[in-house]
Amino acid sequence: MQIGMIGLGRMGGNMAKRLRDGGHEVVGFDMNPESERDVDSLEALVEALSAPRVVWVMVPSGKPTEETIDSLKTLLEPGDIVIDGGNAKYTEDRAHAAALAERGIRFLDCGVSGGVWGADRGYALMLGGDRETFDAVRPLLETLKPEGDHGLVLAGPVGGGHFAKMVHNGIEYGMMQAFGEGFATMMRSEYVENPAAVMDSWREGSVVASWLLDLFDNATQDDPELKNTPAVANESGEAKWMIEAALELGVPTPTTAAALWQRQSSRGGADDILRVVTALRAQFGGHVTKVDEIAKW
Amino acid sequence: MQIGMIGLGRMGGNMAKRLRDGGHEVVGFDMNPESERDVDSLEALVEALSAPRVVWVMVPSGKPTEETIDSLKTLLEPGDIVIDGGNAKYTEDRAHAAALAERGIRFLDCGVSGGVWGADRGYALMLGGDRETFDAVRPLLETLKPEGDHGLVLAGPVGGGHFAKMVHNGIEYGMMQAFGEGFATMMRSEYVENPAAVMDSWREGSVVASWLLDLFDNATQDDPELKNTPAVANESGEAKWMIEAALELGVPTPTTAAALWQRQSSRGGADDILRVVTALRAQFGGHVTKVDEIAKW
Repeated sequence: MQIGMIGLGRMGGNMAKRLRDGGHEVVGFDMNPESERDVDSLEALVEALSAPRVVWVMVPSGKPTEETIDSLKTLLEPGDIVIDGGNAKYTEDRAHAAALAERGIRFLDCGVSGGVWGADRGYALMLGGDRETFDAVRPLLETLKPEGDHGLVLAGPVGGGHFAKMVHNGIEYGMMQAFGEGFATMMRSEYVENPAAVMDSWREGSVVASWLLDLFDNATQDDPELKNTPAVANESGEAKWMIEAALELGVPTPTTAAALWQRQSSRGGADDILRVVTALRAQFGGHVTKVDEIAKW
Repeated sequence: MQIGMIGLGRMGGNMAKRLRDGGHEVVGFDMNPESERDVDSLEALVEALSAPRVVWVMVPSGKPTEETIDSLKTLLEPGDIVIDGGNAKYTEDRAHAAALAERGIRFLDCGVSGGVWGADRGYALMLGGDRETFDAVRPLLETLKPEGDHGLVLAGPVGGGHFAKMVHNGIEYGMMQAFGEGFATMMRSEYVENPAAVMDSWREGSVVASWLLDLFDNATQDDPELKNTPAVANESGEAKWMIEAALELGVPTPTTAAALWQRQSSRGGADDILRVVTALRAQFGGHVTKVDEIAKW
């Protein structure tokens, strides 16, 4: 098939390559003139494609995605298909779909997992939209996904792809935090000599065998105690959105929340809480906290 | 090698079979006369083995393990080796090792993961003890473990095997709870039509790909919404022990704790908490909770 790829960064660039290797014709565009783009404007991209066009948007969520979809609404024709493969929040997809539908342009949202490994391993794809549009672009999806029986699903109506990806990433937060808690407990215990070696051993035959554990082995090959990795974790938004959605739906998600809160605490989010605790301890008990006591502990 | 297997239940029986299939000579004993035991007493088991003997204890932790090790202390000879492959708490291992050492009998503790699948797939084994004793029984361990490069580790000194297994199971609690929270959020959302199909799709190419996700697909094959599974979860002790150990070590484990607390709540552990909340709401706000309101929500 023919496809236009908008955004040739780490993800879009690798996906364009995997699509080309799979026999598809990819016309690539990126705002950056130093990218390996085939055309230098959205207008030229649309001109280079035959109707009905398929355009994959792989740019950062928020303003870049908004602006791209706004432009495509004007440039594309009825029957064309826009796939948003970025990390938009599921709540934004319906507005995008409705705006494009005013001009008869079809829309799919697609959550993409696999990171930098996806280029070789294939990407896990979660789509939102109607079955007919999904089937229309299926040859492209089949090339992007891993070779086996898994890695591709039409999760639900518009928004479903990003909703599923959001939940996927929320689960990922909990899993990584669970591995971290186990590693940290072994690190401080006299009973375990090399926690990374123990976790490496779990990669086969154990109940916790997983791709994350394979990656952990990579991460600890040259630094088994992770001393060169900062004890600070960023967040990308999905766990927060999942917890917000779950709160509305009445589903308690304490494990996902604990994982998020640990990341937020690591970036200072809990500092004012701890100041309250320490200030009140000092008030009622005369506890004076010296910096060296904290460092020691 | 030759080995005596004490306890021929689901785990011990399958391990005996895997050892025999691997070319080892297994003498099996179980308290149950209807088991496929080779001898009808511990005395007969010890007589049937050549010194230095290797005896694998695969009986329930607590009293059965205590009594078996007490008997072996009397029956075995200096140089013999006892491996406790049951689910003892790591704190019990040093006492067992010390008691056996009084008679020159060597001891290893071994955490075993793999459940009913281990018979074919191999068992992930985590050992505690000294390197010399580990090496002495290594041919047996190599047969029990999976075929690849992983699944076997000498985690640390005596107690290290059960400590590592405890942490493994604690991580397992967090991972399962994380998958559960994601599934539950999708179950209540209008954005996802078939949460089990979405999770099945993650088995390849996604960051959360894992053996647990493979098992989840098995579990949901005939019951995608898990309506036939009770919304109650038991616990086996390891997460509780891990959290206790982590508390002593000063390692916060909120994700593991949240997973454990959800299981305890599901069995009524939170009922008195909720009675307090509801009683106080009724006091200050006049909220009267009717049973049908709860059921509706």
